[in-house]
Amino acid sequence: MPPRRPTEDELIARYFAPLAGAAALGLTDDAGCLSPSPGHDLVLTVDAVVAGIHFFPDDPPASIGRKALAVNASDLAAKGAVPVGFLLTLALPDDWTESFLKGFAQGLGDAARDFGCPLIGGDTVRSGGPLTLSVTALGEVPAGRMVRRLAAKPGDRICVTGTIGDAALGLLLRRRPGQRWAAGLTLDRRVHLIDRYLHPNPRLRAAGALRDYASAAMDVSDGLAGDLAKMLRPLGLSARVEAADVPLSPAARSVLAAEPGLIDAILTGGDDYEVLAAVPDAAVPLFLDGLAQAGLSGAAIGTVIEGTEPPCFLVEGGVRRFERASYSHF
Amino acid sequence: MPPRRPTEDELIARYFAPLAGAAALGLTDDAGCLSPSPGHDLVLTVDAVVAGIHFFPDDPPASIGRKALAVNASDLAAKGAVPVGFLLTLALPDDWTESFLKGFAQGLGDAARDFGCPLIGGDTVRSGGPLTLSVTALGEVPAGRMVRRLAAKPGDRICVTGTIGDAALGLLLRRRPGQRWAAGLTLDRRVHLIDRYLHPNPRLRAAGALRDYASAAMDVSDGLAGDLAKMLRPLGLSARVEAADVPLSPAARSVLAAEPGLIDAILTGGDDYEVLAAVPDAAVPLFLDGLAQAGLSGAAIGTVIEGTEPPCFLVEGGVRRFERASYSHF
Repeated sequence: MPPRRPTEDELIARYFAPLAGAAALGLTDDAGCLSPSPGHDLVLTVDAVVAGIHFFPDDPPASIGRKALAVNASDLAAKGAVPVGFLLTLALPDDWTESFLKGFAQGLGDAARDFGCPLIGGDTVRSGGPLTLSVTALGEVPAGRMVRRLAAKPGDRICVTGTIGDAALGLLLRRRPGQRWAAGLTLDRRVHLIDRYLHPNPRLRAAGALRDYASAAMDVSDGLAGDLAKMLRPLGLSARVEAADVPLSPAARSVLAAEPGLIDAILTGGDDYEVLAAVPDAAVPLFLDGLAQAGLSGAAIGTVIEGTEPPCFLVEGGVRRFERASYSHF
Repeated sequence: MPPRRPTEDELIARYFAPLAGAAALGLTDDAGCLSPSPGHDLVLTVDAVVAGIHFFPDDPPASIGRKALAVNASDLAAKGAVPVGFLLTLALPDDWTESFLKGFAQGLGDAARDFGCPLIGGDTVRSGGPLTLSVTALGEVPAGRMVRRLAAKPGDRICVTGTIGDAALGLLLRRRPGQRWAAGLTLDRRVHLIDRYLHPNPRLRAAGALRDYASAAMDVSDGLAGDLAKMLRPLGLSARVEAADVPLSPAARSVLAAEPGLIDAILTGGDDYEVLAAVPDAAVPLFLDGLAQAGLSGAAIGTVIEGTEPPCFLVEGGVRRFERASYSHF
């Protein structure tokens, strides 16, 4: 006889209670209870991920748990918010195992601790299909200070944190390790790219500089080119970006040297989880200095301009526009 | 060629933007932004429902939408909270139709209006399986006043709102309309029972009386007997309930007259979405009066006692205890 599966209450006590913050009330009530900080607004975001669509069912369970929270924390960071907690819906496939859950909860718990974002509540159901995770994350900003997506102005400089394109290349490697262009990559660089895909690092420490200096911001989750268009197009704005100024990791630079055509994957691939911001020209040095003081790198890569064309990327020998500039999972 | 399916942005603009409150920022940003009322705590709950598990895939789309929000609003009500908004994850099966979405959004929107609980944000994904809905609902209570689940005291009276068991009978009828015991039911009473299953009516107006008078409360979602045990057992408490005092609708009374054995379904069936409360004996008249002033019926049905046995129900000719007292979807 196979070992008895734990009940929902046992799962909660064993794997999820350790992730819970004070607002979760020990996960023994029907709701969590949060005392918001006076003088602050709550920032709320929800993102769901589905096995086989947003991640590989055989990704390490701890990575799946970490990423489910990271993608939401990344939204909070880009809005200038500090995380306060999250709620989880865990829809399990019929063949779930306790070993999966253990790893998943470990990764999720490590992320909750790293991001200062404890569990407030949750629901566990049978999915009747693939593993599906939905996370609602809450953060706080001083009242009226959430950094908006649709508020850039012509002349603002386009800035990004970190490096762009690593996760897109990591995903290509995750799909097919034998990529011709990867033959010359050191093991360290391969690992770097795949790690950037599996383990997004939300730029929580950028929140202060964003609140202080950015006109507008969002996280880069669906590809730089597409997300830039999302930030500007509804305002009748566009951008001119110097592709050479887009910050790349040493690993991405090696890849580009071997296969220059991958610049498209770098500029349009998803899963960067960096922050994209529009910053008034005069404030750029202060913004980049604020990021640096928070231990983050940042770069100005272009300028907001009037126009309804998709943002253009100046690359060696010409101009690129991406009409289908981002990936839609839907 | 079949008509083009709308994009996610088009779906949001067409069907979900009309449901959005101010905190949703027009659903055009990466997060919602809520200004909590000073001096209040936030109450947060999440519940997911899956087609084929928690509802019938061929339930009316508007009913599915309404119920997804109602089951969460019911949790808020039982905690003494007033709804402020919700976030939705909509995981669509591959064969979703626009006509389904239209009906779903209509039912969800009517519920959001009825419950004073507008949309704050959402995410739409492909489910890779059945339709799955996850709702995170937020409410407010004056600071420190959330009504807890695990706070009943020996001697407290057990009270419930409304009537118990209708939805369980409605579910039996929904599954098999030709139930022998239903032969003598008028059409009105059949409709009443099925309606109670399809369209839970969260007891939002009970929130004030609960905050003012209840020691403890929760909503009855998994069956009266089981939920009563959940409220008391972790405290080393039990209850003695007079089955004859459990309020039944005229429809449920007719059913019981035809088939007395259905008392078990009434006491252990789920989906009532009434409120179960423990109220100090001296406060019961005030509590019931508070409910009445809010337009709700209520009844005292038993007493909290010391003991680790499951709550007992005194029925004609004896005592019933339900060891497996509630339904687990998990």
